Amino acid sequence: MNTWGQNVRLSIFGESHGPGLGVVIDGLPAGFRPDWTMVKGEMARRAPGGELATERQEGDEIELISGVLEGTLTGAPLCGLIRNKDMRSQDYSDMPFRPSHADYAAFHKFHGFNDPRGGGHFSGRITAGLTFAGALAKQLLAQKGIEIGAQITAIGRTLAPPVTPDQLGERLAELRSMRLPCLNEQKANAMAEEILAAKRAGDSVGGRVEAFALGLPVGLGEPFFDSVESVLSHLFYAIPAVKGVVFGDGLEMGLMRGSDANDAMSGGERVKILSNHNGGVTGGLTNGAPLRVTLFMKPTPTIGREQQTVNAKGESVVMRGRGRHDPCVVPRAVPVIEAAMALGLLDLMGRYEG
Amino acid sequence: MNTWGQNVRLSIFGESHGPGLGVVIDGLPAGFRPDWTMVKGEMARRAPGGELATERQEGDEIELISGVLEGTLTGAPLCGLIRNKDMRSQDYSDMPFRPSHADYAAFHKFHGFNDPRGGGHFSGRITAGLTFAGALAKQLLAQKGIEIGAQITAIGRTLAPPVTPDQLGERLAELRSMRLPCLNEQKANAMAEEILAAKRAGDSVGGRVEAFALGLPVGLGEPFFDSVESVLSHLFYAIPAVKGVVFGDGLEMGLMRGSDANDAMSGGERVKILSNHNGGVTGGLTNGAPLRVTLFMKPTPTIGREQQTVNAKGESVVMRGRGRHDPCVVPRAVPVIEAAMALGLLDLMGRYEG
Amino acid sequence: MNTWGQNVRLSIFGESHGPGLGVVIDGLPAGFRPDWTMVKGEMARRAPGGELATERQEGDEIELISGVLEGTLTGAPLCGLIRNKDMRSQDYSDMPFRPSHADYAAFHKFHGFNDPRGGGHFSGRITAGLTFAGALAKQLLAQKGIEIGAQITAIGRTLAPPVTPDQLGERLAELRSMRLPCLNEQKANAMAEEILAAKRAGDSVGGRVEAFALGLPVGLGEPFFDSVESVLSHLFYAIPAVKGVVFGDGLEMGLMRGSDANDAMSGGERVKILSNHNGGVTGGLTNGAPLRVTLFMKPTPTIGREQQTVNAKGESVVMRGRGRHDPCVVPRAVPVIEAAMALGLLDLMGRYEG
Amino acid sequence: MNTWGQNVRLSIFGESHGPGLGVVIDGLPAGFRPDWTMVKGEMARRAPGGELATERQEGDEIELISGVLEGTLTGAPLCGLIRNKDMRSQDYSDMPFRPSHADYAAFHKFHGFNDPRGGGHFSGRITAGLTFAGALAKQLLAQKGIEIGAQITAIGRTLAPPVTPDQLGERLAELRSMRLPCLNEQKANAMAEEILAAKRAGDSVGGRVEAFALGLPVGLGEPFFDSVESVLSHLFYAIPAVKGVVFGDGLEMGLMRGSDANDAMSGGERVKILSNHNGGVTGGLTNGAPLRVTLFMKPTPTIGREQQTVNAKGESVVMRGRGRHDPCVVPRAVPVIEAAMALGLLDLMGRYEG
Repeated sequence: MNTWGQNVRLSIFGESHGPGLGVVIDGLPAGFRPDWTMVKGEMARRAPGGELATERQEGDEIELISGVLEGTLTGAPLCGLIRNKDMRSQDYSDMPFRPSHADYAAFHKFHGFNDPRGGGHFSGRITAGLTFAGALAKQLLAQKGIEIGAQITAIGRTLAPPVTPDQLGERLAELRSMRLPCLNEQKANAMAEEILAAKRAGDSVGGRVEAFALGLPVGLGEPFFDSVESVLSHLFYAIPAVKGVVFGDGLEMGLMRGSDANDAMSGGERVKILSNHNGGVTGGLTNGAPLRVTLFMKPTPTIGREQQTVNAKGESVVMRGRGRHDPCVVPRAVPVIEAAMALGLLDLMGRYEG
Repeated sequence: MNTWGQNVRLSIFGESHGPGLGVVIDGLPAGFRPDWTMVKGEMARRAPGGELATERQEGDEIELISGVLEGTLTGAPLCGLIRNKDMRSQDYSDMPFRPSHADYAAFHKFHGFNDPRGGGHFSGRITAGLTFAGALAKQLLAQKGIEIGAQITAIGRTLAPPVTPDQLGERLAELRSMRLPCLNEQKANAMAEEILAAKRAGDSVGGRVEAFALGLPVGLGEPFFDSVESVLSHLFYAIPAVKGVVFGDGLEMGLMRGSDANDAMSGGERVKILSNHNGGVTGGLTNGAPLRVTLFMKPTPTIGREQQTVNAKGESVVMRGRGRHDPCVVPRAVPVIEAAMALGLLDLMGRYEG
Repeated sequence: MNTWGQNVRLSIFGESHGPGLGVVIDGLPAGFRPDWTMVKGEMARRAPGGELATERQEGDEIELISGVLEGTLTGAPLCGLIRNKDMRSQDYSDMPFRPSHADYAAFHKFHGFNDPRGGGHFSGRITAGLTFAGALAKQLLAQKGIEIGAQITAIGRTLAPPVTPDQLGERLAELRSMRLPCLNEQKANAMAEEILAAKRAGDSVGGRVEAFALGLPVGLGEPFFDSVESVLSHLFYAIPAVKGVVFGDGLEMGLMRGSDANDAMSGGERVKILSNHNGGVTGGLTNGAPLRVTLFMKPTPTIGREQQTVNAKGESVVMRGRGRHDPCVVPRAVPVIEAAMALGLLDLMGRYEG
Repeated sequence: MNTWGQNVRLSIFGESHGPGLGVVIDGLPAGFRPDWTMVKGEMARRAPGGELATERQEGDEIELISGVLEGTLTGAPLCGLIRNKDMRSQDYSDMPFRPSHADYAAFHKFHGFNDPRGGGHFSGRITAGLTFAGALAKQLLAQKGIEIGAQITAIGRTLAPPVTPDQLGERLAELRSMRLPCLNEQKANAMAEEILAAKRAGDSVGGRVEAFALGLPVGLGEPFFDSVESVLSHLFYAIPAVKGVVFGDGLEMGLMRGSDANDAMSGGERVKILSNHNGGVTGGLTNGAPLRVTLFMKPTPTIGREQQTVNAKGESVVMRGRGRHDPCVVPRAVPVIEAAMALGLLDLMGRYEG
């Protein structure tokens, strides 16, 4: 089902090449007066444009259909609608299924009736609604002293050194203003070059994003099924191209002994977690250390090179990607990842009694 | 909330050292006559015992409270109850919070009223109910030709070579009978040795599990929020000690170009996915290739060595783990991981129209 | 929350005097090609116009934003949007709370930030989205041989005689074409006169609607919480002005002895329920007899007469209703009631294994 | 599905003649120390016994399996288990379906695999779990100044005069101590006589219950789908034998003009609702007047007289009720109705921001 959330509930709809797309958000507080300029800024971070992304030109302008009166939320469900504009007509009836894309599976799931134009409902474009909702969630979290941020730690084989949460906290505004958010300028340039090289080759690259949340209370999350990790990974895996979600030093903790991997604590005026291998979550609940999670993203499946695949008749065909596509979705995915994190945490905050 | 599922709904309850624990399962088909010996076998795989696990002695015997009449499911909710038996009394009132365990976060979440005995509701023991439910789910999936399996691919620094799904399919029964399910005998022995070494040192180790599902239809899963990856990772992250969930070659795909990472297809009588970097899921839906996911597990937080931590008063203290604990939870987690996968897929099958 | 449904999920949004309103419907089958003329007809039944209803002029034209390609459903969420057009500007800032309307309670719930224009999100106008979704649900049910119908059995003190389900089944098309759907022509005329009399007096009247479903399978519904009665009454009570929901002869059964109230059965080629005091539901499940439910609706709260009430400052004031309003909402509620019934039954059919 | 609730979530399980029945309750606050004597008292109100009820002898003793430590709630799911004791063995294989009971519909829904013994999962006995959960909910509401009460206003043809909420508030404790809770002593005696007369005749009677909630805040409930009326009627209709749910003067409001039916308000230090035809709910939200709802209950279907029915083979048979049954379930239903009301309101309070 295309709804999500318990205290903040989202309904996502729309297609890449249909009339439009959007989101209905329920559960936001009446009287909340969002900074709409910030919301537009978040939408712009995700929007296409620039040499690192697809050339499709769309401002992703949100029309507020409901739930807002003179800029203030009324408490009724908020519907944000984005019209599609820069669509190019083409014939999809004999379009082969793009390898590694939703095309083939969606065709089967929906018995051939899915909207195939530009991936239809499976297009990354649908994340615009999530980004919009996430921008509101971020503002509500910020009111409680919770900040969300993310940086790219890898594009293809170019790896950036990790940052500490402190660094991230200080340079959050800077990160949000970057087209390729990475605090190491040299690496950021190398990453951009890696994207352009893939683009020149008619190919694509993937990468990694490290996302943070600072200022969370201790004990957020629910035991068992609705652990912080369960709720966040559920949302992260709704984002196209995400193939791995790892909390803290999850990849390396299995190689350590417990005596090394455990995060010791010290007391006094304020309890401190002395290391943060767990990425701020123990027993499925936040423990007061910064929440830290790494997402692994695959290369954009749509490429401009010849690929072996099948068509709707089940015949082997060779296809070459047509249309405009992103050589790398990672930069545009950063605000989407932040949005998903913000929405997941806001929903859990609704169940938190502090 | 401690419920999960849309078509198959679970409610989990219980504590490690209280009267008992269990699960209510709703949505299983009336007239289904489970192989109860297989169910007991799955419970035994997860149960403690043996030199690789905790010495707590419990058979995890399930009492069927409801939903079953003369061994056959009635269609009403099935409640399975497990009594706790081998509990040792001790005083928990001044127990320090175990580093990296739920203790500290749970104490805050529940304002000090959480049951601290053996981790209470956060104990890995609660997964017995999930294992029970999963055993039933596995049987229902098997009726549709879907098989679930898993092998350990790492314990600490001992890594086992990957298996192909074909190998796994052929040796599934064998895997299920192993105390340390790994198809490479030499590596399995080395893994056991790594666990025993940690045990001797009063320490613990983590590892990795690779889980598979074979025989899935094409197009299972829902777009966006309820992708196969979202639903499964949600469940996997309910299992204590899981810190990473990666589908297919998710870790490596970001290092590849799209032209290498994409899974080409060939047609003919039957569509074939020629590689499986995506782990059987594209666009959030199954694509007919085997579903393949790797889980990264951290070392058991409870160890027999001195650790720096805090107590309920917020004072720094040094603690040494008391009581019986697992030097490595990975072997016992294998049937739980399989159970979670089976339940997630069974739930999604309920929304699949084939 | 403004979402409903398990197998068919609705999200409702919008306000009476904002940009528009609509509904997102998820879970409808891909490949379903609705009769869009019928859908428009259902919208027209609910739309304002005619001397029995408000003079607000709105066609309630639905724009299909998503989920439909060339008239056929794709399986992705369907968003239908209705723009508001004939809104008259007025100042609501010192508007007193209309007695018996949502105004006062909504003002408190949303701390004064609710959209007060025309009732905002609490307007009966929001049921347009439900009617749209219900029109699709009716068509899907009709494919399975299930027909929904309703007639008005009372307007004010004018009562119409009951009809048998057989009569209703035969004259269903006729009922759907009536502006005041009542099979007894003489009573229908008297009802219309009662509405006009109230209108002339600047007042309003309520009434009763009897709704039916024919052709349901035996055993639809879920035990306990999701009984047919639970699911349907939940939806019916979402419709403004509904104050009573009674199944079968629910009002009178308490006055009978069990030996009279029980519905005897006879066997043979086909089991027959010999009477239908239970209205087709026993034990919360359908029993094969026609489903029959009566809804009691209060008079429209907004009237043109002086009433004692309070304003936002909590001061006593006397108000006289301004603006256009319905002297009786019952005729326009009939297609909404049918829609709610259709949606509830369609959702339950998704859990029915036949 | 046998789960209900968003902020307080219930899972119900069990059968009349199986090992037992119970409920899992999630979402109750950690640190809550219930008055367990009151809980037992509520269970006793619903329990069988006395000349007005079935002769089945069961104390309905709850065993607390989880979620409670030394009498205090821990915040983890609370499982309460009731063992069945006084079951009489008998052969159900050729038992005819009792007219108006769940038997026939359940047999079809579950393809003949339902537990038929004593109605199985459809037995009124399952409401013991609801009563238990409701007793806890009542205490939590009372902490917020909200009181729940109910009185019987009709048994068969014996009608009692209505009480004012004030009367009810003052005599709440008295009502809770009555076996047949009705404030008019003369009518209460006549009602008891009506039950005994039906019992002597091997027959049964139904009746009506009027339930109240006092002290609710203004604005409780959600717009549209989760109106107070939607949420409460959903729960009420889960109670066996309920066939009608009417809020306030819902039956009579349709006969009035709006100018009479509307509840005028006066301001000043405190806003007053001057009448209460709406039963305390307008626009689906509480308006500060006492919540008042009437439930109509049918006679117990199981009677000791001959009835025409069918058996599992679809043959016409004549049956005479065997076993012990209630000549009237209304008195025992009163605490169940109160419990359902308390749970519905508590769940809505979880979404109320005050």
